[in-house]
Amino acid sequence: MSFDSELKQKTSDVEKLIISYLPKEQGWAKTVMSAMNYSVCAGGKRLRPILMSETYKMFGGSGSQIEPFMAAIEMIHTYSLVHDDLPAMDNDEYRRGRKTTHIVYGEAMAILAGDGLLNYAFETALKAFEADGADLKRCSRALSILAQKAGIYGMIGGQTADIEAEDLGSNVTEEHLLFIHEHKTAALIQAAMMIGAVLGKADEDRISVIERAAYEIGIAFQIQDDILDVTGTLETLGKPVGSDEKNNKTTYVTLKGIEAAGAQQKEMSSNAIALLEGLDAQGIRNDFLMELIQSLITRIK
Amino acid sequence: MSFDSELKQKTSDVEKLIISYLPKEQGWAKTVMSAMNYSVCAGGKRLRPILMSETYKMFGGSGSQIEPFMAAIEMIHTYSLVHDDLPAMDNDEYRRGRKTTHIVYGEAMAILAGDGLLNYAFETALKAFEADGADLKRCSRALSILAQKAGIYGMIGGQTADIEAEDLGSNVTEEHLLFIHEHKTAALIQAAMMIGAVLGKADEDRISVIERAAYEIGIAFQIQDDILDVTGTLETLGKPVGSDEKNNKTTYVTLKGIEAAGAQQKEMSSNAIALLEGLDAQGIRNDFLMELIQSLITRIK
Repeated sequence: MSFDSELKQKTSDVEKLIISYLPKEQGWAKTVMSAMNYSVCAGGKRLRPILMSETYKMFGGSGSQIEPFMAAIEMIHTYSLVHDDLPAMDNDEYRRGRKTTHIVYGEAMAILAGDGLLNYAFETALKAFEADGADLKRCSRALSILAQKAGIYGMIGGQTADIEAEDLGSNVTEEHLLFIHEHKTAALIQAAMMIGAVLGKADEDRISVIERAAYEIGIAFQIQDDILDVTGTLETLGKPVGSDEKNNKTTYVTLKGIEAAGAQQKEMSSNAIALLEGLDAQGIRNDFLMELIQSLITRIK
Repeated sequence: MSFDSELKQKTSDVEKLIISYLPKEQGWAKTVMSAMNYSVCAGGKRLRPILMSETYKMFGGSGSQIEPFMAAIEMIHTYSLVHDDLPAMDNDEYRRGRKTTHIVYGEAMAILAGDGLLNYAFETALKAFEADGADLKRCSRALSILAQKAGIYGMIGGQTADIEAEDLGSNVTEEHLLFIHEHKTAALIQAAMMIGAVLGKADEDRISVIERAAYEIGIAFQIQDDILDVTGTLETLGKPVGSDEKNNKTTYVTLKGIEAAGAQQKEMSSNAIALLEGLDAQGIRNDFLMELIQSLITRIK
């Protein structure tokens, strides 16, 4: 099977898996459940659960114990988008061609749906603890990683710095920008791959290698996003180009120019690949994961 | 020591404990941390952590393993207030005489502070898993209870039903109102007491007794709130009386009249006390907890 059709198949499988973990819409609290499910079912690359499951397989993991964590990380990613889209935050009416959650369900319900998804992510991940023969030490290590990378020392921290960067305009420094990308984008990529490694029974040294590789992947992914905002076309991206410049947003491209940004992206991609090749030399490999990572950081959409 | 001074001492101890678990305000994400800490340090009865710790002691629990959970449940209670106060929700500018979080830090930061507190509650509770000799099975049972009672099958579910009740005005049924009180108020009281029981090594039957007693306590506490809104004075309550009627809010009092509401409150209080006396007969008792519960449901403020 070609990489593209394999990715398509895996995305579809992950989508079904996530849906199987969503709450049944019923009872007096039905509306918040509908708003949560609407948000999660809006599509997307399902990148984080796929990275998690492929890293798990790379370390020899098999079986279903990873699945609650795969659903959980997508719920966390989704809640962050629902809250990001709110009028007080980015005030977006559309995402992926569909109306955003607060446009359909109202602002109060969108706040509760975001809260509901964040909380339900933990409820869902905790199901892994109840499975027969669950390794509770590894499960709690995995859950701690998820919580830390999603919280104020991870994604929420990145969002905070991002909001404050808006007020600074062109006074944003490279250090500040790197903090935003590391926390807002890379932290959840790190959580995905680290949880795959932890549940795949990787040792501490190898979990550190994965943490570092995921950092490089996350930042490279974000710089590629910034580059595509300038070089892409409406046709390939499916969204207007040049929106960063229009919104007066500081990116690697506005800060360092497109060539230097491209060079940094390539360097970080190479670092990530080199780290994974180091594991390959120890007999730990997953060709699909390697191709997926290559495709993410050289993507044109 | 009198009950009042003992309660005062315990509240002050719990306050210090919670503060010791708050994040240090530093780095690029400092603002969200300040907003979280501002919200948690706004005072309050600290009822949930006290109920948790007293139930823990009632079952013979000792030592510090309960502490991360005590801080966590107060963080969850606080985040729910921060999000509840937002303009899209109750739009409150003051709480306990202080400006609400979104008034001080802005709406975007208040949304993130609420998200941050909910997420940090899980990060904090997970610290109990790392303690020497931690019983991971009981810790994960306790964390599952916290997540479930705080989420869409608990508190968030109750908030959803509460928002929808506002649109229904006087068409709210008793069944709907009971759902709101059970989930919005009683669920977190149940979580507090059940986690105390679980970590205090109570068996399943006794955990069920606690769950039931906490249900009765939670609803009785809420009915007492509704009664005080009619019979209280500005002086004792520290907030305007009659606000439920003014806001056209359906309560037990507006639905059934003050006498029937009072009778139901007394019945539920007696049920709770009877359940705890049943444990007392098995040698499981905590006089302070019993007095605390009595005081909650007969309070005049």
